[in-house]
Amino acid sequence: MVDTWMNEWDGFTQGRWNRNSVNVRDFIKKNYTLYDGDSSFLAPPTEATKKLWEQIMELSRLEREAGGVLDMDTSIVSTITSHGAGYLNKELEQIVGLQTDKPFKRSLQPFGGIRMAQKACENYGYQVDPKITEIFTKYRKTHNQGVFDAYTPEMRLARKSAIITGLPDAYGRGRIIGDYRRVALYGVDLLIEDKKHQIETSLIRMTSKNIRLREELAEQVRALEELKELGKIYGFDISRPAATAKEAVQWLYFGYLAAVKEQNGAAMSLGRTSTFLDIYIQRDLDRGIITEEQAQELIDHFIMKLRIVKFARTPDYNELFSGDPTWITESIGGVDVDGHPLVTKNSFRYLHTLDNLGTAPEPNMTVLWSKKLPRKFKEYCAEMSIKTSSIQYENDDMMRVIHGDDYAIACCVSSMCVGKEMQFFGARANLAKCLLYAINGGVDERLKVQVGPKYRPVTGDYLDYDDVWDKYEAMMEWLAGLYVNTLNIIHYMHDKYCYERIQMALHDRDVKRYFATGIAGLSVVADSLSAIKYAKVKCIRDENGIVTDYEIEGDFPKYGNNDDRVDKIAVTVVRRFMEMIKKHHTYRDGVPTMSILTITSNVVYGKKTGNTPDGRKQGIPLAPGANPMHGRDTHGAAASLASVAKLPFRHAQDGISNTFSIIPDALGKDMDIFVGDIDLDKLRNEQ
Amino acid sequence: MVDTWMNEWDGFTQGRWNRNSVNVRDFIKKNYTLYDGDSSFLAPPTEATKKLWEQIMELSRLEREAGGVLDMDTSIVSTITSHGAGYLNKELEQIVGLQTDKPFKRSLQPFGGIRMAQKACENYGYQVDPKITEIFTKYRKTHNQGVFDAYTPEMRLARKSAIITGLPDAYGRGRIIGDYRRVALYGVDLLIEDKKHQIETSLIRMTSKNIRLREELAEQVRALEELKELGKIYGFDISRPAATAKEAVQWLYFGYLAAVKEQNGAAMSLGRTSTFLDIYIQRDLDRGIITEEQAQELIDHFIMKLRIVKFARTPDYNELFSGDPTWITESIGGVDVDGHPLVTKNSFRYLHTLDNLGTAPEPNMTVLWSKKLPRKFKEYCAEMSIKTSSIQYENDDMMRVIHGDDYAIACCVSSMCVGKEMQFFGARANLAKCLLYAINGGVDERLKVQVGPKYRPVTGDYLDYDDVWDKYEAMMEWLAGLYVNTLNIIHYMHDKYCYERIQMALHDRDVKRYFATGIAGLSVVADSLSAIKYAKVKCIRDENGIVTDYEIEGDFPKYGNNDDRVDKIAVTVVRRFMEMIKKHHTYRDGVPTMSILTITSNVVYGKKTGNTPDGRKQGIPLAPGANPMHGRDTHGAAASLASVAKLPFRHAQDGISNTFSIIPDALGKDMDIFVGDIDLDKLRNEQ
Repeated sequence: MVDTWMNEWDGFTQGRWNRNSVNVRDFIKKNYTLYDGDSSFLAPPTEATKKLWEQIMELSRLEREAGGVLDMDTSIVSTITSHGAGYLNKELEQIVGLQTDKPFKRSLQPFGGIRMAQKACENYGYQVDPKITEIFTKYRKTHNQGVFDAYTPEMRLARKSAIITGLPDAYGRGRIIGDYRRVALYGVDLLIEDKKHQIETSLIRMTSKNIRLREELAEQVRALEELKELGKIYGFDISRPAATAKEAVQWLYFGYLAAVKEQNGAAMSLGRTSTFLDIYIQRDLDRGIITEEQAQELIDHFIMKLRIVKFARTPDYNELFSGDPTWITESIGGVDVDGHPLVTKNSFRYLHTLDNLGTAPEPNMTVLWSKKLPRKFKEYCAEMSIKTSSIQYENDDMMRVIHGDDYAIACCVSSMCVGKEMQFFGARANLAKCLLYAINGGVDERLKVQVGPKYRPVTGDYLDYDDVWDKYEAMMEWLAGLYVNTLNIIHYMHDKYCYERIQMALHDRDVKRYFATGIAGLSVVADSLSAIKYAKVKCIRDENGIVTDYEIEGDFPKYGNNDDRVDKIAVTVVRRFMEMIKKHHTYRDGVPTMSILTITSNVVYGKKTGNTPDGRKQGIPLAPGANPMHGRDTHGAAASLASVAKLPFRHAQDGISNTFSIIPDALGKDMDIFVGDIDLDKLRNEQ
Repeated sequence: MVDTWMNEWDGFTQGRWNRNSVNVRDFIKKNYTLYDGDSSFLAPPTEATKKLWEQIMELSRLEREAGGVLDMDTSIVSTITSHGAGYLNKELEQIVGLQTDKPFKRSLQPFGGIRMAQKACENYGYQVDPKITEIFTKYRKTHNQGVFDAYTPEMRLARKSAIITGLPDAYGRGRIIGDYRRVALYGVDLLIEDKKHQIETSLIRMTSKNIRLREELAEQVRALEELKELGKIYGFDISRPAATAKEAVQWLYFGYLAAVKEQNGAAMSLGRTSTFLDIYIQRDLDRGIITEEQAQELIDHFIMKLRIVKFARTPDYNELFSGDPTWITESIGGVDVDGHPLVTKNSFRYLHTLDNLGTAPEPNMTVLWSKKLPRKFKEYCAEMSIKTSSIQYENDDMMRVIHGDDYAIACCVSSMCVGKEMQFFGARANLAKCLLYAINGGVDERLKVQVGPKYRPVTGDYLDYDDVWDKYEAMMEWLAGLYVNTLNIIHYMHDKYCYERIQMALHDRDVKRYFATGIAGLSVVADSLSAIKYAKVKCIRDENGIVTDYEIEGDFPKYGNNDDRVDKIAVTVVRRFMEMIKKHHTYRDGVPTMSILTITSNVVYGKKTGNTPDGRKQGIPLAPGANPMHGRDTHGAAASLASVAKLPFRHAQDGISNTFSIIPDALGKDMDIFVGDIDLDKLRNEQ
């Protein structure tokens, strides 16, 4: 794609985006209109919007009544072009496209694993067509089967004991964000041309790596051809760029729709689309061919479509994720690398859907928070947060340093440069359980079998800090190696049997791959080690000598109170485990990262973790993400946040989550305190 | 498998084969009975044999009348367990098992490529079930599609122009010999146990290579389970070792049958089975539970089954290979590394099938010829050769140095240690055409398009030897690189989409992989360069200046007359091209080898090669393999053989073929001259 100009781009400022290569960031930079005003311009929902949303609410009600699922495909395998056009109400919808031929009908996606697809169906009283089962048993191997072919017995055991948890070996890994904006900006034909050029200029020394890349690029071209076909099914020619705001939203949504038709990943995030789309809306507003009401209607209808994205999941999955989340994360706001906020009217319009349609967890509206965001936008965010509790915040000032200004969040906290970086999602290792393994020499405290290596267990009645720490480091070394090797298998097989064709087609050729790992139970570990160090912890053994419970004599500092004695333990654990992760070979030269993130699964992990030396009892949920344990952060919100803020981002670059609920009065009655006066960076720097 | 003893082994001498690991060679060494007698013990065909063979002849007649195919599967995909039991005549058959449910019904094998399967069917008026086409288009990618996804435009062009020819990208590569003897000796359960032990002791650092190996081993175990199922379909429990000669033949054949049910490789060779099976026959003879007639009947019926192995091939394939060969090569005789001939009565019995059933090209009976073979066996070979022209000879004394004494031949000349080595088959590069590319600066003399690199062409009217050689070396360098990279893609994709599960299940875990390449047109090249060097060769150019013909003034030495002036050119070309091949990365660390081998495809290659400077005209077949050009070897058989014998085996370790027809009188009237008095080694050493 060299020095092209398309009629649909009339009115746009030229740049590298049309002269050299696919470059959405450059397009945004050259063409967006900063908005630093307030929310007074926003329009209420149209009649069509209200009617459609009522229809969705009614369908949701029926779905709940039907036991969680309204209808399921059992014989059509979901692909980009598998279904004819489907509508909520063709007359009213501004933005069209469903995953199947009917709203709320769940698609059949067996490429990840036929047994998972069967279980998901059976859970709701449906049965996968035996012919499909035969195809995906006799002829087409799946990701899940590939993984289990390669797993070692140790991996199976670690998975069973849940010291490694939530692995994407029985569901799609997700966490890959296609740059869906490219579909609107360039049209599919230019993207295909670009991909073909990538193939032509690919390495010709045919190592397995290069062969794999060439085949993937060929598959990407095939997926793009199918994407055009998807447009045709709904009566649109998306081979060319979008010419209007309505087309831009529609084209972009087709890109996303193709992705969710092909993949049921654990997090199918959207990217960073609001400011991009504002450029088209603003052009149409300037041309007088659209009103603010119509603009808002486009966004409302688009968001509505995202809200009804649904997958057929297994009961296991639903338990792990406390429901059936899709994590369609949209990253809003942020500041560019020159210090200009990337806030537009459309940033407001996206958040405004929470008013127009009511609150909802999806799409996961995530504000990239910076001290430099326009004050009025901050105020609007605060207002909408107070009103809806439906907005997630992330620290743009930190992430921009690493990813520049066109990154987005996948799932909850995983940042990646859109179309240039992707992630191999790795769920997490249970570091609380690992501490129990250190104490018991690798014997699982619940299963009572040897899972870890047969290291020396703790032998005395009382735990000695230096002794436990020494054993804990050794056990973490083992766990890090096993964990990374397990993930290597998963990602190899996912690429082999369930490759994300369309999502990767909307990436550059040479993407940076993050090899994400994660940890669970950090606060339990910190508090346990603190108890061992600052109080006296006595071991209670079962009849086989396995330590299964602890008695604590005396008090000890607890993580979440801005007390360095324990917070530093948490910091050290994070740093050490990340260092250990880094020692191992990663698939496709993935760059290892780590997250301290659980939003829901900590409940399941807690069930599978025995009594811990911090006094937590077996079955009690671990704290989510990097949170202090429930109720132990007794020194106020600021101290609690300060403890979390000490965790080193450079060792947990995939993100640190803190689930923070607060009654408004706790922070005072002034809006100011919300919109910028808690300076976490300052707290961080003080350490 | 450590120190096992099974009842079925009663009477066998113990050794490493039952104490340490799967080791068929050790079993043979410890248990075989050398036979140095004559052929007088052999038994004629039984009535059952005659009747069955008549039935086959009748079916063959009907097949010819039906246009080449009698029946085809169009909706059942061939797998190890895809069909119920099929018989010629259940009452008469000693050894049972067919590829499908009926004799002469060809199986459907779409894993290599659905379009090939379709073409093969359509060629004979059949139609692949659209449901199968859909499965292998929408859900299950094939080898062929994978290859073409990764090919570069240059590779496609080189394939089209036929400078690289006969690539196994549209048919199975074959040339992998499962050690089918293992099925008889150990039974499938012990083999599964052994494979599981291999998995348990496989590398745990999960690089892509190790993950691939682990998955392959899992697939091998699955294939072995299916093999047991195949036995059950015919009413046999092959989980245990074979207890009798009949079972041994049957078990071994089930192993082979599973392979041809799963793969339609270009050469599905059998291995080295005759002396192995003799051990079982001899034990039964010694026990008095079998007669020589019955022994011969087992072998006759086994060979009969091998003769009716058939694949559905495309017209292209049939043209390339001049028919529909299966290359079920069985390697007979040879000498062990201590100098003991490995000839048994069963070596005779195998050859005797040519009498009992009449001559046939399949199975490809190949005698591993050594000066040390028992004289009476040599005489019998000579007698049967004279009578049937159906025996192939290979130099055991040379190959034993490289492979030891349990190797076998795959296809015509490719030697590999059974169960320990395999080959990635690579068809061949047309070196005659490469010479024309050197002269025309990479422009194809027939297609008139640039295929090779834009090197400087020859510019004068007359060809200068040093100039042409210099250009030829440069062009060979290009060709070698392109060729190896093309093969890398093919073998990567074959492993990915059409992995030989059961054949590799009958191998050790850590096999040595030969990366076979081949050359065609050697004698044309040698003679052309000789003409340029020793005569005067004038270029005739077309209107675009492309050299399309040559005029030779004067005479020149020709390859095939034991004339070093030209023979040394042939030797140099072989050495140089092999050296160039070795410079390139090979898939799976394959050890590069080269063959000088064409038995039939030289005809097609000749059609695609323009006029050459040796005076050969466009369309005239190249000489087969390492043969001198037809009629140019004017100094007698010994001189012709001597020229071929000069070719360096170390640079053409995959084999050198010489198709040699001779009228009996040419060698004199004494049997002696056939059975050992032409000492090619001596001729070779004289150089």
